[in-house]
Amino acid sequence: MKRMFVMALTGLFFTAAGAAMADEGMWTLDHLPVKQMQQRYGFTPSPQWIDLVQHAALRLAEGCSGSFVSANGLVMTNHHCANACLSQLSKGHEDYMSNGYVALKQEDEPKCPDVELNQLQSITDVTAQVNAATAGKTGADRVKAERAIDSKLEQTCVNGDAKTWRCDVITLYNGGRYALYKYRRYQDVRLVFAPEQSIAFFGGDPDNFNFPRYDLDVAFFRAYVDDKPASTPQFFKFSMQGPKAGELTFVVGNPGQTQRGVPWIQLAAMRDYRLVPFFGFLTELRGVLWQYGRAGAQQTKEAQDLRFGLENTIKVFNGWLQTLADENVVEQKQKQDAALREWMAATPERRAKYGDPWADLARAQERSKDLRARYDMLEGGDGFADRFGQLFGYARTLVRAAAERNKPDGERLPDYRQANLPAVQQAVESDVPVYPQYEQTLLSWSLEKLRQVLGADDPTVHEVLGKQSPDELAQHLVSGTHLSETAVRKQLWDGGEKAIEASNDPLIQLARQIDPESRTIRKQYEDEVTAPTDKADETIAKARFDRDGMSSYPDATFTLRLSYGKVVGWNENGAPVPPFTYFGGLYKRATGADPFKLPDSWIKAQGSLDPATPMDFVTDNDIIGGNSGSPVIDREGHAVGLIFDGNIHSLGGDFIYDGSNNRAVAVDTAALVEAVRKVYNLPRLADELTQGHL
Amino acid sequence: MKRMFVMALTGLFFTAAGAAMADEGMWTLDHLPVKQMQQRYGFTPSPQWIDLVQHAALRLAEGCSGSFVSANGLVMTNHHCANACLSQLSKGHEDYMSNGYVALKQEDEPKCPDVELNQLQSITDVTAQVNAATAGKTGADRVKAERAIDSKLEQTCVNGDAKTWRCDVITLYNGGRYALYKYRRYQDVRLVFAPEQSIAFFGGDPDNFNFPRYDLDVAFFRAYVDDKPASTPQFFKFSMQGPKAGELTFVVGNPGQTQRGVPWIQLAAMRDYRLVPFFGFLTELRGVLWQYGRAGAQQTKEAQDLRFGLENTIKVFNGWLQTLADENVVEQKQKQDAALREWMAATPERRAKYGDPWADLARAQERSKDLRARYDMLEGGDGFADRFGQLFGYARTLVRAAAERNKPDGERLPDYRQANLPAVQQAVESDVPVYPQYEQTLLSWSLEKLRQVLGADDPTVHEVLGKQSPDELAQHLVSGTHLSETAVRKQLWDGGEKAIEASNDPLIQLARQIDPESRTIRKQYEDEVTAPTDKADETIAKARFDRDGMSSYPDATFTLRLSYGKVVGWNENGAPVPPFTYFGGLYKRATGADPFKLPDSWIKAQGSLDPATPMDFVTDNDIIGGNSGSPVIDREGHAVGLIFDGNIHSLGGDFIYDGSNNRAVAVDTAALVEAVRKVYNLPRLADELTQGHL
Repeated sequence: MKRMFVMALTGLFFTAAGAAMADEGMWTLDHLPVKQMQQRYGFTPSPQWIDLVQHAALRLAEGCSGSFVSANGLVMTNHHCANACLSQLSKGHEDYMSNGYVALKQEDEPKCPDVELNQLQSITDVTAQVNAATAGKTGADRVKAERAIDSKLEQTCVNGDAKTWRCDVITLYNGGRYALYKYRRYQDVRLVFAPEQSIAFFGGDPDNFNFPRYDLDVAFFRAYVDDKPASTPQFFKFSMQGPKAGELTFVVGNPGQTQRGVPWIQLAAMRDYRLVPFFGFLTELRGVLWQYGRAGAQQTKEAQDLRFGLENTIKVFNGWLQTLADENVVEQKQKQDAALREWMAATPERRAKYGDPWADLARAQERSKDLRARYDMLEGGDGFADRFGQLFGYARTLVRAAAERNKPDGERLPDYRQANLPAVQQAVESDVPVYPQYEQTLLSWSLEKLRQVLGADDPTVHEVLGKQSPDELAQHLVSGTHLSETAVRKQLWDGGEKAIEASNDPLIQLARQIDPESRTIRKQYEDEVTAPTDKADETIAKARFDRDGMSSYPDATFTLRLSYGKVVGWNENGAPVPPFTYFGGLYKRATGADPFKLPDSWIKAQGSLDPATPMDFVTDNDIIGGNSGSPVIDREGHAVGLIFDGNIHSLGGDFIYDGSNNRAVAVDTAALVEAVRKVYNLPRLADELTQGHL
Repeated sequence: MKRMFVMALTGLFFTAAGAAMADEGMWTLDHLPVKQMQQRYGFTPSPQWIDLVQHAALRLAEGCSGSFVSANGLVMTNHHCANACLSQLSKGHEDYMSNGYVALKQEDEPKCPDVELNQLQSITDVTAQVNAATAGKTGADRVKAERAIDSKLEQTCVNGDAKTWRCDVITLYNGGRYALYKYRRYQDVRLVFAPEQSIAFFGGDPDNFNFPRYDLDVAFFRAYVDDKPASTPQFFKFSMQGPKAGELTFVVGNPGQTQRGVPWIQLAAMRDYRLVPFFGFLTELRGVLWQYGRAGAQQTKEAQDLRFGLENTIKVFNGWLQTLADENVVEQKQKQDAALREWMAATPERRAKYGDPWADLARAQERSKDLRARYDMLEGGDGFADRFGQLFGYARTLVRAAAERNKPDGERLPDYRQANLPAVQQAVESDVPVYPQYEQTLLSWSLEKLRQVLGADDPTVHEVLGKQSPDELAQHLVSGTHLSETAVRKQLWDGGEKAIEASNDPLIQLARQIDPESRTIRKQYEDEVTAPTDKADETIAKARFDRDGMSSYPDATFTLRLSYGKVVGWNENGAPVPPFTYFGGLYKRATGADPFKLPDSWIKAQGSLDPATPMDFVTDNDIIGGNSGSPVIDREGHAVGLIFDGNIHSLGGDFIYDGSNNRAVAVDTAALVEAVRKVYNLPRLADELTQGHL
């Protein structure tokens, strides 16, 4: 499971599941299902336990989870969550992503150019403030009012020190509740250890989302403050044994997005008009990268981070498309909606109170069909490789930041609000390598998509391409730009609007050229689709609160959640899948050919390892993309595992949780300790894990 | 519009439309809607007119249509239907596909390696014979009985001379009727003239399926018999003026496949479980080819035929997916099915007569979900680039032909029946270039798909790959094989089973290795999906006959059909789209950059051309893929145009005809005559078109 392309595919929505059954649920820490946990597992978390969980758990701002595992800022996460850092640190002939990285002493821990950790400090209910600000407003007015109140709440919370604090207003229960999340922000994050890609992602794409599995998908970072290891007294102690079959387990992390409560009409529109076209877009890009990588080792390296991400996302989409085509799922969703709709219309009072949000929703989906392709190409940046290349993203961010920074905070685009600016600035100014041939390939392909999707007669397409072919323009842009130089970007950031206006960098000029048109389609989409959808969803959510009470958990929002469950296998085609794999199985599965080729370190170490050491395991904890890197902890609050994937049945979990076969996949801490000590011979790190401090 | 990947996506089915409205319908020549034509257009075709249409119209066996346009075997079809021939004839530095080809004298007309023309001789109703043979049979028995009766009917029809005659048993009205089609077969087909790709496909993929349009998508072949131009007294005289707005037009050609009468349950399963995955497969392959072609002019040339085909098919799939997601279409289809189902169950007699074919259909679709991916990879050959590369196709055909030729005709796989063998042999023995690097790329990618779709643990995948990666195996296969040499293939064909068994060619060995497993999944699929689906569809078709009579046309079956209509534009977003474009508009649209770059010939000729000459036009004739290359004729039986595309709304025509905006797109014969005379300076060809003979 990898970080997924960030896609706000639908609005969020209060789950339709009523009281959650089985081990279902991604619970906020201020609203844990204490009764159910006690009933099912005889466990009630103490306030100290909850406090530990809150402060030892981490969010990786780019889309993963992690945790502190020593008092000196040591962070455990997945190898695949460290991919970007590993690629970016690899200069010249180095290839840390393939070969791994080891910091033998503390001075060898290099700074990751672009990793940000968030540690949750507090959750404050701000429902009343948000509701008061948006009351009675629709369309553009609602968008504006929401931006203003969010900005105000966040600025007050950050209190002038955005380098240290990060504050986000989060929509929970799809507008049933709003909460202000305050985080401690760590931007000096350094690399301690990562194993070879071939063991971290053993089995590659064929084994991804499958089990049995034999991956050591781990990386260790360290948080620094004032150039010294951060002091982190709240951390998860490392269990040397890992969990037992049937044992109660918790996953604490940041599930990215679920859509379990989204009305079927929204899901159906998403499937047919967004998921299917985007699926084609991604598979085509995979084909481009596959062939690009065949040109040589350098090209393989350049494309591999994106390629792994794509393969992962495509598997996710496959799972989604299958779930959304499943007649049983469709029927269940339609029935739930129909029942609520009926309940809302059953009395004159309710009809007066709720109106007909379902009709508003249908209208908004219709508008989305007309507007969405243009939105994705221009504002989404898919026509310029914005989401998967680097250069255009720099240009757009510089152009927009210059313009937005001149506005009052409450009127800015949300990404550029004061509270977010440090992350934006870090991304622009971090020193990461740019591969011109690779960037040119992505840009050329994207420009071709732009022309294809909007049509050769579209005025914006005409304006962008003129008489040039996509390939010619891409070459002109990449050979002419200086945005690959960190110093140039820094200069443009510091110079603000004047520097941008004076720049004759072709990419800056392109970003300026399409900016008005991009902002127009964004505004139109927000006013005619997002705002009415939000409003309708909010009304439906409130009706559901009125009918059911707040008995369940909100859909995932990439904020801290706890899920409880147990170590347990499942049945596949009638045969049981046991919950553990062992080192012995790894050596049996190895073939010598990629992606089943073991690294030399593991071949050498075979004699010193106990084949009965557990390697990976599965639990029925309810997780989703974004949970990558989450620790699995036991009732003592000790780390016993490291989430890195779900099985194939977990993909449907975006829309519905099925405890019979939905499984989370984790690395066993027993395997981690053994590997650090015996495969990689790192007493410094092994001792820190064992003792809990440097 | 291009030849599409041949996909038997569903069984065929009698149309649900009842009496066809507007200008809807693809009518068989033995069942023309004479009354409607008379009522709407005051035209009743004479027997001579029908006889002319039948003998002047042609089928290109690989998936297009064409027509005789002189008494000396001159054939008009589309440039895109001649792509394969143009590529195959281009040796060394020649590139006929891009640069066009001109035979100044008759001796310059080279033989196309792999083109077969079929001229319809007769249609014989064989419903009674087929019904008698399959009565009461299900599953494997039904498959076997159908093969036996088809073989018997075809062999009797061919009467020992398969070089001259071709006979096919065609299922019409989804089993409501069976007919034996007898064709004159022409295999010596030579190239007379093709323009440059850049004018034939002006506007490229961006303009494909769009209008206004400025394409000269034409190629001329000549049929030869005994090394002399064939004598073809029945041909369409060439109109120098083309048609007028509003004029009655007919299209005669071979629409490939429609699914207008297919029950919704089948269409929904097709959409979710076959169309969507295959869409991803094709877009990914497009990405591979796009990047492959960027390596240089040679690579561009190697990949371009397949790339154009893919782009076309992907647009078709997009249109299909949109139509099948259209709520109005879904509702209409569901209602039609429900009404028929109700009618079938309304009396005890009907219940006894029909049983419950709907339940059988649902069960067969469920089985298809389980079996289809494996079927496509192995028997469909997608895991070995069989449908889009060349080498594995040779290997499989040689292996299978050797085995099948030893069996009695009625027990063979249909492709290898005596009646079909000449076409198979021609394809294997024709002298076409093979590009090793290109083939290796396609094979490597396909093998990776094989592993991905079936899973790394699949025994067949293990057996094929062993410890090699897809790339290694592909290299081994392509560097080791000699199947790119025509003489080697000829030898293996002639040597039969002994030669195959003795061969140590790695591709022959691979084809032999997977043959048992491929045949197994094919048999399973035919027995558990195809046969029960056919039987259920047949029962439903018969019930509809019983209720409605045979009042409409059968779904398209790549056999000769006539559609009537008129030259007429449509409304797009409230604005009228006029039915004609002119030379003047072509020069205005040209930009100098691909795909809007004019060839030198047209730039030079601009001064001598009248800008008011009509170039392309649209009609509301009901056509579909396979109609490419069909002539448009007037009530005199004169050729006034050449079909080469449909507009974007025509894509839904696979499932439903909407006369308000579904349009066929054709080249005007006025443009053809002008171009041949003034742009290409070919008096020989121009005179033949004008006079009707050499």
